[in-house]
Parts: sequence; C-alpha cells; structure tokens
Amino acid sequence: MENVKQMEEKFRALLQEQDSYREALSLVQWDLRTKIPTKGTDQRAEVIGLLSQKIHQIKTSDEMKECIDQLKNQTGDAILQRAVEVCEEEYQRSSLIPDEEHRAYITLQSKSESIWQQARDEDNFELLQPYLEELVAYNKKFATYWGATTNKYDQLLDLFEPGVTTALLDQVFEQVRDGLTDLVQQISQADHQPDSHILTHYFPKEAQEKFSLDVLHRMGYDFQSGRLDETIHPFAIGINPNDVRITTRYDEQDFRMAVFGTIHEGGHALYEQNIDNALAQTPLATGTSMGIHESQSLFWENFVGRSKSFWKVLMEDFKSVAPEAFQQIDFEDFYGAVNEVKPSYIRIEADELTYCLHIMVRYELEKALIDGDLAVKDLPEAWNDKMEAYLGIRPSTNKQGVLQDIHWSGGDFGYFPSYALGYMYAAQLHHQMQQEMDVEAVIESGDFSPITSWLTEHIHQYGKVKKPLELIKEVTGSSLNASYLVTYLTNKYKAIYNL
Amino acid sequence: MENVKQMEEKFRALLQEQDSYREALSLVQWDLRTKIPTKGTDQRAEVIGLLSQKIHQIKTSDEMKECIDQLKNQTGDAILQRAVEVCEEEYQRSSLIPDEEHRAYITLQSKSESIWQQARDEDNFELLQPYLEELVAYNKKFATYWGATTNKYDQLLDLFEPGVTTALLDQVFEQVRDGLTDLVQQISQADHQPDSHILTHYFPKEAQEKFSLDVLHRMGYDFQSGRLDETIHPFAIGINPNDVRITTRYDEQDFRMAVFGTIHEGGHALYEQNIDNALAQTPLATGTSMGIHESQSLFWENFVGRSKSFWKVLMEDFKSVAPEAFQQIDFEDFYGAVNEVKPSYIRIEADELTYCLHIMVRYELEKALIDGDLAVKDLPEAWNDKMEAYLGIRPSTNKQGVLQDIHWSGGDFGYFPSYALGYMYAAQLHHQMQQEMDVEAVIESGDFSPITSWLTEHIHQYGKVKKPLELIKEVTGSSLNASYLVTYLTNKYKAIYNL
Repeated sequence: MENVKQMEEKFRALLQEQDSYREALSLVQWDLRTKIPTKGTDQRAEVIGLLSQKIHQIKTSDEMKECIDQLKNQTGDAILQRAVEVCEEEYQRSSLIPDEEHRAYITLQSKSESIWQQARDEDNFELLQPYLEELVAYNKKFATYWGATTNKYDQLLDLFEPGVTTALLDQVFEQVRDGLTDLVQQISQADHQPDSHILTHYFPKEAQEKFSLDVLHRMGYDFQSGRLDETIHPFAIGINPNDVRITTRYDEQDFRMAVFGTIHEGGHALYEQNIDNALAQTPLATGTSMGIHESQSLFWENFVGRSKSFWKVLMEDFKSVAPEAFQQIDFEDFYGAVNEVKPSYIRIEADELTYCLHIMVRYELEKALIDGDLAVKDLPEAWNDKMEAYLGIRPSTNKQGVLQDIHWSGGDFGYFPSYALGYMYAAQLHHQMQQEMDVEAVIESGDFSPITSWLTEHIHQYGKVKKPLELIKEVTGSSLNASYLVTYLTNKYKAIYNL
Repeated sequence: MENVKQMEEKFRALLQEQDSYREALSLVQWDLRTKIPTKGTDQRAEVIGLLSQKIHQIKTSDEMKECIDQLKNQTGDAILQRAVEVCEEEYQRSSLIPDEEHRAYITLQSKSESIWQQARDEDNFELLQPYLEELVAYNKKFATYWGATTNKYDQLLDLFEPGVTTALLDQVFEQVRDGLTDLVQQISQADHQPDSHILTHYFPKEAQEKFSLDVLHRMGYDFQSGRLDETIHPFAIGINPNDVRITTRYDEQDFRMAVFGTIHEGGHALYEQNIDNALAQTPLATGTSMGIHESQSLFWENFVGRSKSFWKVLMEDFKSVAPEAFQQIDFEDFYGAVNEVKPSYIRIEADELTYCLHIMVRYELEKALIDGDLAVKDLPEAWNDKMEAYLGIRPSTNKQGVLQDIHWSGGDFGYFPSYALGYMYAAQLHHQMQQEMDVEAVIESGDFSPITSWLTEHIHQYGKVKKPLELIKEVTGSSLNASYLVTYLTNKYKAIYNL
C-alpha cells in the first residue's frame, strides 16, 4: 500500500511537469497569434519545438511506463485511475510508432502546413499533392501499427472522438442528409427570402467589442480567469484552468464575424473554465473530445446566439451601441438575416443549415482516401463533384474547394467529423435541457446563468473523465441520435422561411 | 580538428536549448506583469520554477563541463570562445555551491520577497529581519566558496558588474560626493527655484501614449521587433533579439511617469534590439552588465529626454496632444520643472542630481553588512543616519527608508552600485559622443538616429562580448572617470538654478 502511495506521488509529479510544459507552450501559442511583433516569430519556432519535445518525452518515458504498469487497476483514486488510462492510451499509441518515423512525420507536418499556405495563395494543388500523398501513407501506416486491418479510418477517428466509428458516422450522417436535403431544396425555392445585406453596414470595432463583452458577461465567462484579445483566426485557449483566453476578429463592415465568433469561442472557454479543480494538472483537465468541445461552442453560438429569444432580449442593447444604419431594421428582418441560408463554397462561412453538408463532403473524401481507392491526385475533382451533389454548387478554383482548410495538410484525417458531431451533440443536449427548463424563457430573461450551470453540471465539470458517447448517454438518457438536430433545424428554418 | 568542430556543434546545441528555455521564461514573465488574468497566476509559479530549473540544469550539466573543457582556448571562433568563458564562470560559480544550499537559497529568496511586500505594507522591519539575516549569511558564505577571504563584497559586485571592485567604487563615489555636495547645498538655497507643480495637471492616458510612441519612433525603437504595454512596475524585456518589449505606467495626474519612463525603458530596449545577430542564442546576446544597461536607459532619459534641445524640438508636438492647462506654460519654466532638484526619500522618485546620493547610502550599508560590522537589526537606524548625512532629510518610517527597495529581500547585494555606475558611464559616453558630433544639434534636428547609430556601433552590437570597463576604455579612450558626470551635472544645474 505504501508502494502505491509513493507511485501515485511519482505519477502526479510527472503529470505536473508535463502540464507545466503544456502551460508554457499554450502561452507561447497564444502570444504567437495575438501579441508577438512581426520579426519575433522566427526564433519562437524553436521554443515550440523544444517544449513539444519535452511533453512527448514525458508521455513516452520509462518513468511513465512504470507509473502506468504499477498503478493500472491499483490506485483507489478514481481521478488518478482515469488519468492512468489516458496516459496508457497515449503511451501505447506513441510507443507503437518507431522514433525515426515519428520525427520524420513531425517534420513533414510542419513543412506541409507551410506549403499549404503557398498552394492556397497560388491556387496550385499540384504543389501540395506530394505532401498529402506522404501524409496519407503515414496515417495508413500508423493506423496499422495501432492494430487496424481493414478499417484504418476508425483508428484515426478515435484520436479525435474516442468511441466514434465509421459505422456510427455513416448512420447519423445518412439521417442528417435524408432529413435536410429536402429542406435545403425548399428553402432555396421559398418565396420569402431573408436578406443579410441589411446587416453589412459600418459598425465601429469598439462598439462591437462593447456588445460582445456584455454577452460574455451574461454567459458567465469569468474575466478574472480570462481575457479577450484580437487575432486573425479566432480561437479559445486554456492556458491553465484559471487562465482561459478568448480571441476574436473585428470586421467593421460585418459585425457578425466578431459577435457570433466571440459567443462561439466563449462557449469553448466556459467548458475549460468550469472543469472541476480536482482535475487540474492532469491530462483530464480539458475537453473530453473535439466533438463535445464543439458542441459547447455551437450551443452558445447557434442555440442561444442565433435564437429569437436572444435578440428579443438584447436588441435594445445592440441598438444602443450600433450606428444609425441599424436603428430602423425590423426585428423579424434582422432575425431572418442572421439566419439566412445560402449554399456557399467556404465551410467557415457556411450557415447553420448547410454546415453539416460541408462536413459530409470532407468525411466521405477522407474515408475514401484512407480506406477506399481515392487517390490524392483525384481529390480536387472528387471534391467538386461532392459539392455539386450535396450543395448544388461547383467550385471554380481549388482555393474555393479542396485547398480551403488546413486540416489535411497538418495530417489531421478524422478530425472533420467532430464538427458535425458537435452539432448533433448540441441539438441532443438542447432537447434534454428543454425537458428540464424553459430554455427560451431563460434566454429571454437576459440572465443566461441557468444554462451555464446546467452545462457545467452535466458536461464541463467532468473534463476528460467521461468519454463523449458515454457522457451524451448519461446526460440525455439515449445514445447519439441525429434526429434531434434534424428536428431542431426543420422547425427553426420552416418558421423563418414560412414553409 | 574534426573533434573541435563536433564539440562546437554540441556546445551550440546546448546553448540553443538553454536559450529556448530562457525565451519561454521571459515570455511567461512578461505575461505575468502585463496580461495575465488575476486568478491565473497561482499555477504559473510552477511553470517559472520548472523553466528556471531546466536552465540551471544545463548551466551546471556534465555536458556543459565537457564542452567547456574541450573548447577552452581551442575553438577558432571568437564568439564561441567568449561564450565558453561566460559559461565557465557560470559553471564554476554554481558548482562551488552545494546543491542543497542552492535549493534552500532559492526558496529563501522567494519567501523573503513576499515577506518584504508585507513588511513594507505594514512598515514592519522586524518581520523581514530574520530573512535578511539569513540572506546576508548565505551571501557571505557564497562569496567564500567563490574564493573571497577578506573582500567578500567584491565577489558579489562581480555578479552584476564584472571587473568593478570596492576600491574603484570608493574612489568614484568619493569623486561624485565631493563634486556634488556643494552644488546640492547651493541649489537648496538658490533664489530661483523651478516649480514642478506646473506639470501636474490632468493629461489623458491616450495623449501620453501618443507622445511616448512618437518619441520611441524618433529614438529608432523598432516596433516590428517590439511593442509597448501597460504594467505596474515598468520594465523592458528581451524575449529574443527580434522581440524586445517595453512596458510603462500612465499617471493621468503626472505625465512624467509615462513619458520619462518610456524613454528610459526604450533606452534599455534599443540595447537589446541592436545586438549583433551573430550572438543570437548564446549567453552573449544580452547587455554586458547591469551598469552598462543602465547607462543606455539613463542616456536616453536624462541626457536626451531632460535636455533643453529635446524640449525645444518636441514642445510643439507635446502641446498638440496636451490639454489646455499645458498650453500657456513658459518654455524655461517647463524645462526647469522637469529638472527640479529636491531631496526626497524614495530612490525611484529622485531627481537626476540627488539620485547618486541615494545609491551611495545603499552602497555603504551593504558593504558594511557583508564585510564590515553592521548588523541587520541596526540597518534601519544606519539607513536614516546616512540619509540625513547625504541628503539632509531623515525618514520617519522604514517604508520611507530601508523597506522601500526589493533588492536586498531578493538577496541582491552588490546590485545597487550598477545604478550609479550607469550614470557615470552615460556621462562619459556623452562626453565622448560630443567629441564626435554636435549632440545638441542632433537632438534639435528631431531625428535622433545618429545617436542610436553611435550607441549601436560602440556599445549595443557587442552584447556581452566585451566587459564593461573594457568597453568604456575602448570607446572613450580612458578608464572610468566620475568627473564627466560631475562636470555635466554642475554645468546643467548651475544654468537651471542661475548659480
């Protein structure tokens, strides 16, 4: 027993050291995207390299192996037990890849990401093609190391959404596709069409910031444990549980960028701020999966921020900071405009309804790349075909098409489905929340804290203790089911489009 | 020969790793003093502990010892040779202190610094006394480990100002005291007394910032390699040679805090920005000593920023951002007011003329603590006696006296003289610069770049390659000589006070 206690201490010290490197690395990354002066970046790459290497060394160290072996199914501390489990998964994954392949892959990733930048700027897929081919080959190989025989893609999915499989995705995506294709079609032919042009008037940055800060306060974001800064590509980052920062971008011709962006990142940040303190400095003190994280940001952005109740209660505040051009906009026109549906080429600009279709395009393509017979060289054509099939529009350049996202260039195959899963989780959570409180009434009260408390109680506090599908099942009483999303979108958009 | 090449590569890799930890640590410290949310600080202390420990481990590692032994007097690369020298000094100093004493001392330092905060707030010297006693004892012991027999204080001085000894300080301080005592006396009895109250009117922060930024631009501070932020205790920090940040503090009732503070920190920052790129990622890529660093900040703050020429050229810009209350101030009154001489209790609020007297008080006390027979318990009384002797005023509280500075509580004995040396170096450099260009004419042109170029050519570029006294000798052709400072101050203040 004394032995276990000592080993627990050793394990905690190891986790703490790993976490301190992670904290330093997070701060370096936040600074790199917010404050660093232009010329300061070159040398910073080496700092990132060193800190990442130290984290990797600890994860794959003999000491870590010893702790795992000694503590597995031994410690009476439930949190430590789950931490051992997570560390074991990481240890095994890393140790199954030969060191030289791991190093070569890291180099390839960073090279490929910078080539992607150039390829996108020049609309030149051929430039990126050899790198993508290598990345696909490595991912297939790694999946094999991890034990895959036929379904390699399932191994990759597991990295981002533990427990989610191709079989499950095929099923829920089919449900979404079947449920939404008709609706999208009807909307495109509807007589009543909201017009988002009424929103694109000059709106000074300071006024956008004021409104965004007000919303963050109402959401319960703790400014003593965080801050809001400007960046180019907005993100939220948990530097430590009491230092969770949000970034946003202001477009003075379109307030939606900053306002909905801040609410979205605020949703991510609330998750990280409200994790149980007992999990601090363990690998459990973060979101349990990419999909559950995205469910939190999308819940706030769409189920709250784009709801009618939200604008009912906040329209007066909004108008009080908005310029003259916004003062006469009719409420229903405004609400319709922030929910306008319009098939578009770029995923991150997509509306709530067509967003999942963008994800399906990527999901089917990456599945075919890893387990099917799609060759990288045929990707641009395959992309455009799928866009035409699902969204009825065909990109005329690769910049508008396959080159728009960085994910594949960073070797992230299996990541995209998390975005759609986030929507489905959010809709299912929203449905459950409705059973327990009048969500619209809460939003209309202007005090959103009951929503934050509910999410903290059911999701946030657990960090990585519970796995995503387990969490959804426990909170909602049923397995993942895409019908909640279909129902929610159908009701909402039929009303907006008078269908 | 091949062996030396390989060893050089090993040495460079070691220096690079050490420098990456240092870079991460610098960023953490900058963030801690500028951006971190209130609750985020607790966990950050562990990050600082870990990164500091890694740097210490490399400095004292067997690999470092091997590089030093193999490369000493071997490598043909002059920069590497000097880096070996610096690393050897650091290695020897550290390795002569037993590990457990080093750890205990680090803990004592950080505890003592936080006790100091409380002691100062409560004006309670007894609270701090036992910590100071321990710190003094450790410093004496360390000096003995480093080889001191009688002059222990010289060993401590060497940490901050290599090559400077008690003998030299006694001599230059005597020169300054003899040269200035009469002048300070005459000034206090002069008929004409400038009045700094004309400066203490409301001056909005944004306007102060605008003027400060303008001055930084004229100084040649590179904003692509730096940035200006707010803090409580202003500082400049070189995160890497292309990321040298300045911080300042705005007092809306007294613009001098931010304006002269920014110029001062800008002087430090120019030093770090203009170090030769060839020194990057070696221990030579920083200022050569505390004193030379301070010479750069004081040169800009006083010899430029408080000069008549500076205000002649910038008065119009100043008034264009200043509120109504400043518009009618007479130029000579303004110039006198920013140079008002008035004995005061607090060092960091002291004027240019009495500042060195504050340093002498501290110098004589710390010398007596380390090598003489002054006991820590007698420090408050001894402090007050010296203040009365040198400045003619006697503090009525320890908060106004011995508790005002954090240095001794951090174990820094031998640091204070650097501040006065900085003044002497600056005056000697200013005198030399005058021989080579008409400094006042350059300032009056409004384009300060010839000054920055001169300082870069003679000081900045060398980083830590040349030692302080060697540098001064090379640039000015003569050894350190306090008469330049005495002459400069005498001429300037006789004119201001019509003596």
